Amino acid sequence: MQRFALLGAGFIGAVHAGNLAANPDIAFELVYDAAVERATTIAKTHGASVARSIDEVFDPAAVDAVLIASSTDTHAQYLRLAADAGIAAFVEKPIDLDLPAARGTIAHVEDRGITAMVDFNRRFDRDHAELRRLIQADEVGKVELVQLTSRGPASPPLDYVKVSGGQMRDQTVHFFDLARWICGEDPVEVFVAGSALADPRITEFGDVDTSVATLRMPSGALVQIDSVRRTGYGYDERIEVMGATGLAESRRQPSGNVVRYGGGHAVADGLHAGWFERVRPTYASALAGFVDALENGAPPPVTLDDGLKAQAIAEAATLSLRSGRPQAVDYRGDAG
Amino acid sequence: MQRFALLGAGFIGAVHAGNLAANPDIAFELVYDAAVERATTIAKTHGASVARSIDEVFDPAAVDAVLIASSTDTHAQYLRLAADAGIAAFVEKPIDLDLPAARGTIAHVEDRGITAMVDFNRRFDRDHAELRRLIQADEVGKVELVQLTSRGPASPPLDYVKVSGGQMRDQTVHFFDLARWICGEDPVEVFVAGSALADPRITEFGDVDTSVATLRMPSGALVQIDSVRRTGYGYDERIEVMGATGLAESRRQPSGNVVRYGGGHAVADGLHAGWFERVRPTYASALAGFVDALENGAPPPVTLDDGLKAQAIAEAATLSLRSGRPQAVDYRGDAG
Amino acid sequence: MQRFALLGAGFIGAVHAGNLAANPDIAFELVYDAAVERATTIAKTHGASVARSIDEVFDPAAVDAVLIASSTDTHAQYLRLAADAGIAAFVEKPIDLDLPAARGTIAHVEDRGITAMVDFNRRFDRDHAELRRLIQADEVGKVELVQLTSRGPASPPLDYVKVSGGQMRDQTVHFFDLARWICGEDPVEVFVAGSALADPRITEFGDVDTSVATLRMPSGALVQIDSVRRTGYGYDERIEVMGATGLAESRRQPSGNVVRYGGGHAVADGLHAGWFERVRPTYASALAGFVDALENGAPPPVTLDDGLKAQAIAEAATLSLRSGRPQAVDYRGDAG
Amino acid sequence: MQRFALLGAGFIGAVHAGNLAANPDIAFELVYDAAVERATTIAKTHGASVARSIDEVFDPAAVDAVLIASSTDTHAQYLRLAADAGIAAFVEKPIDLDLPAARGTIAHVEDRGITAMVDFNRRFDRDHAELRRLIQADEVGKVELVQLTSRGPASPPLDYVKVSGGQMRDQTVHFFDLARWICGEDPVEVFVAGSALADPRITEFGDVDTSVATLRMPSGALVQIDSVRRTGYGYDERIEVMGATGLAESRRQPSGNVVRYGGGHAVADGLHAGWFERVRPTYASALAGFVDALENGAPPPVTLDDGLKAQAIAEAATLSLRSGRPQAVDYRGDAG
Repeated sequence: MQRFALLGAGFIGAVHAGNLAANPDIAFELVYDAAVERATTIAKTHGASVARSIDEVFDPAAVDAVLIASSTDTHAQYLRLAADAGIAAFVEKPIDLDLPAARGTIAHVEDRGITAMVDFNRRFDRDHAELRRLIQADEVGKVELVQLTSRGPASPPLDYVKVSGGQMRDQTVHFFDLARWICGEDPVEVFVAGSALADPRITEFGDVDTSVATLRMPSGALVQIDSVRRTGYGYDERIEVMGATGLAESRRQPSGNVVRYGGGHAVADGLHAGWFERVRPTYASALAGFVDALENGAPPPVTLDDGLKAQAIAEAATLSLRSGRPQAVDYRGDAG
Repeated sequence: MQRFALLGAGFIGAVHAGNLAANPDIAFELVYDAAVERATTIAKTHGASVARSIDEVFDPAAVDAVLIASSTDTHAQYLRLAADAGIAAFVEKPIDLDLPAARGTIAHVEDRGITAMVDFNRRFDRDHAELRRLIQADEVGKVELVQLTSRGPASPPLDYVKVSGGQMRDQTVHFFDLARWICGEDPVEVFVAGSALADPRITEFGDVDTSVATLRMPSGALVQIDSVRRTGYGYDERIEVMGATGLAESRRQPSGNVVRYGGGHAVADGLHAGWFERVRPTYASALAGFVDALENGAPPPVTLDDGLKAQAIAEAATLSLRSGRPQAVDYRGDAG
Repeated sequence: MQRFALLGAGFIGAVHAGNLAANPDIAFELVYDAAVERATTIAKTHGASVARSIDEVFDPAAVDAVLIASSTDTHAQYLRLAADAGIAAFVEKPIDLDLPAARGTIAHVEDRGITAMVDFNRRFDRDHAELRRLIQADEVGKVELVQLTSRGPASPPLDYVKVSGGQMRDQTVHFFDLARWICGEDPVEVFVAGSALADPRITEFGDVDTSVATLRMPSGALVQIDSVRRTGYGYDERIEVMGATGLAESRRQPSGNVVRYGGGHAVADGLHAGWFERVRPTYASALAGFVDALENGAPPPVTLDDGLKAQAIAEAATLSLRSGRPQAVDYRGDAG
Repeated sequence: MQRFALLGAGFIGAVHAGNLAANPDIAFELVYDAAVERATTIAKTHGASVARSIDEVFDPAAVDAVLIASSTDTHAQYLRLAADAGIAAFVEKPIDLDLPAARGTIAHVEDRGITAMVDFNRRFDRDHAELRRLIQADEVGKVELVQLTSRGPASPPLDYVKVSGGQMRDQTVHFFDLARWICGEDPVEVFVAGSALADPRITEFGDVDTSVATLRMPSGALVQIDSVRRTGYGYDERIEVMGATGLAESRRQPSGNVVRYGGGHAVADGLHAGWFERVRPTYASALAGFVDALENGAPPPVTLDDGLKAQAIAEAATLSLRSGRPQAVDYRGDAG
């Protein structure tokens, strides 16, 4: 049984709280949020206590692990505190929007030797995981061409976009991670073309809302990722992998299985209206993977280094968007 | 907030217990089972108490509603106790395997005026409900031909089959109810042809495991229901409705959305391995429908009379299986 | 190279004419039709000659085989003429609407020893044939439950219905044949329930336009066939076969592969508007099967006896519709 | 009625010959091929004559239109001869592998004013055409992101690859055309990343067999095209168009509609084994479009200029492959 404290009681914090309470291997002890009311609501719902201070959270006598779901600018600090206290940490991405700072934090954490995991939850999607299992079982041969689609139904508020780090760092980063995870290798170069089609105002922040990325892998395999902030038809996420002997696909998920024939058409249920309907079960699965690692003294299924590498790709992608040229990915930080 | 007691702590009792605990409008107070250990396990998991006697359960000062998930032979007795105590009741089907006895119980319950609902949970399947919405919205015109498929992956144990009342009363009864619910009318005649193909030993109890039923509706609409105890390919449930202007279908549900192309084929995820994977969410939805009725003083979404009518059809179906001829459905019990 | 004469220059005659002309193993020599103009049009289009008389057609010095696509009331006579002349015959169903007469004609033809085939063209549908191949290869185990759907988009003209012999003999007969072909056994009993829902005027001829048939096989396997004259959603034909270890399906065929997502739905191409769009390629394939038999001195892929058996089932089905009871199928004609 | 001469009696010439013979508005008069035997075979099959010389073909007294399906290095010469003789021309792509030479030829032809059409037959695919109809009808809103997949099952022979001009000019050029046709605008920039994964020997010719292209449109719309010479799973061609309000897709076409459930999977018919099975009907449709234009004095549905533009994109794509950088598309030829 792992004793958990939750940091952050916003929308995603509440989702994690439900999963912490439902997981039979977790004792959900504490919630902390600068907004005490939000923390109180969550604590009451799930029988946890409200932590009055950060110190109460990072107390290894009471807490085995923290789940960091607070605002992005606090991730690095909380990670360091956990590392210093010898408490395991499960952290929402990104570790730090500033890549060199993220590198420094990770070095610090690794030095302390705690078990830490970045919540790249999409790896835990049932269909994506089955897709990867097929690839690992060599069911489609050596990977040659991968296509990932990441399309949300609605543009985020401008205020959010402004501080998000841009589409590559905020949205596509999940898919850079999936590309690495599926291919089993790290891209060496990335080219991105993008446009602001849904809301041209975001060009003020140098951002785009519709983009296509091309990644080159060391093996010669190629990866395409399209990222869209606003579709007119719901949440669309899928992955297609062509290998030397076959093709495997984690298809776009329909919201139901009803179809109506008439007027020359077959009208079926469309896609989920929002990203959360699709992604919801992955949070619990990711958390379960982290707890398994804790219980078994095993490495976590996603490491901080995975987080760093995806971020390095996002960094090169952002550069490519600006320069209009392909950019080499700098994983070690010594190019700049 | 409705205070609930759960009767029965077996497999389905445990499922209901989880739903009772998760429903925000329910206070899950008591569990009763003759096997005290099972009751205790459930009570502990969900923070309820174990009732030491039946009297403790049927106490209107402590309990607003009972959920009857105990063995079939106790349903009628518990329903009567609830009615006498003025406590609402949500009861697993059937009310009584003996149809005249079921009629008597329902008359008794209706006399007392409690809110009571039979758990025809399949009506609460998301896809079935959407299908019916389309029909009610006249999206396919007047219903002319309905096809229902009810196929479980594995034959139940012989001991169960022996006391189940036979395939019509045990399995197909859910689909007789769906047929009424979808068509908005009650079948007047039923013909069933059946065979014992998976396990011929069940012929000793006069039972079948593979059968096709034809129902005639007063409007001339026709209904086909196929019922299978053991498939070789998982759990298969679906409904197709042809109306005068179109067709609507609640399709067989795949277990995932992964497909692999190769060797001339497209190999996709198959059906759910078991019935429970498919049906699971419907229990919570059915319960929520019952609680809504309680909160709003409205009639329950499924009545005891619905239970009785489905049972009357099952009775005629059983007769048809034996006689080899079509049988009129006797809803009032005055034919025999 | 087989020299063919075509009898009948109506709609289906014209279809056959195109196939006769395109088949590289056939020399399309003659066309005969009482309406000389129609025969002339077809002859001109395909470089054949118009036969001035029936005698010219049944001349074994000039003709190796006849394709009988004339009106139903001429089939038996032409078959006998072919048999007497020692000319092979490919004949549209039925041999004779009167079953005893059909039996007499077949006995006569078999006596003469010509190669003769009934055009049960649906056996040559690419998907149906692949379905049967799977069954024969034991991919789904022993057949236990078969479902066939036969639904045309539009009721035929009343004048046609009047002389058609009724839905069982005219429409469902093809599917009685498919049921035998797929199961590899002959049904012993049939029950049919039917209604006149699209056009109640056909009740004047004792006919129905919406019906469901249940067939019992000697092995205990069960077959359901639904037959509909008028759908609101195009031409719907499909077959589903459940065996002991799996399920195989020849699905309804879409008219295209375009889909549009939007407004919460996925709107795909529907079914073919008419039966001919779906069935068209089967005529050429059936003819090719016949020519193969001629070239190789092999038995035809469909025999006259196959035609007779399907007709015997249709006869019992028609009786069941009238009596409201299951009817035994009388294949030998000695029951009446 | 248009009198046609066919130039070229190879594989594609034979396909065109069948379509010329079957089209009711065409009189198929002559076939020419340097290999007289091949021409003779085709002429015999379809009742045409063999032309003994090129002069016989380009005789406006006997021929209204030529179909140029000879080897690529003859296209330009034959087009000029047709133009000089005032004979219409339907020509396989490319006009000339050398882009400036192609420009010169087109200028010459346009000067003479004949009706001339490039056989971009994929525009005539039923599903692609329906997809474009949806877009033109504004069913998905303004086009924002287009994805095209072009994947053949088997690498062409090395000898062919050597003289093909490379993957962009030989294979992807069809999809550059489709991109223009669907978007209604001409890309301004193209970036291509490619690898030689199926057969590394092609790197000797500077070629690739697996590539992904990104096109930028003047409107900001983005286009991705993936091109593969050798898949392990058949012929895969599809187009997906995301607009501001929805998504439309011309899906990969299955080779049939049979599915088998068992062992946890649903095994359906895969894709067509070869490109020709998919593309076959488009040749006749493209030809019919050309004949319609001739009959009505209308412009052809695909112009020589369309051919030139697709080729200009292929040229930039080839440059991008070599330089590793995005390249502007030069449609006028004055950049080089």
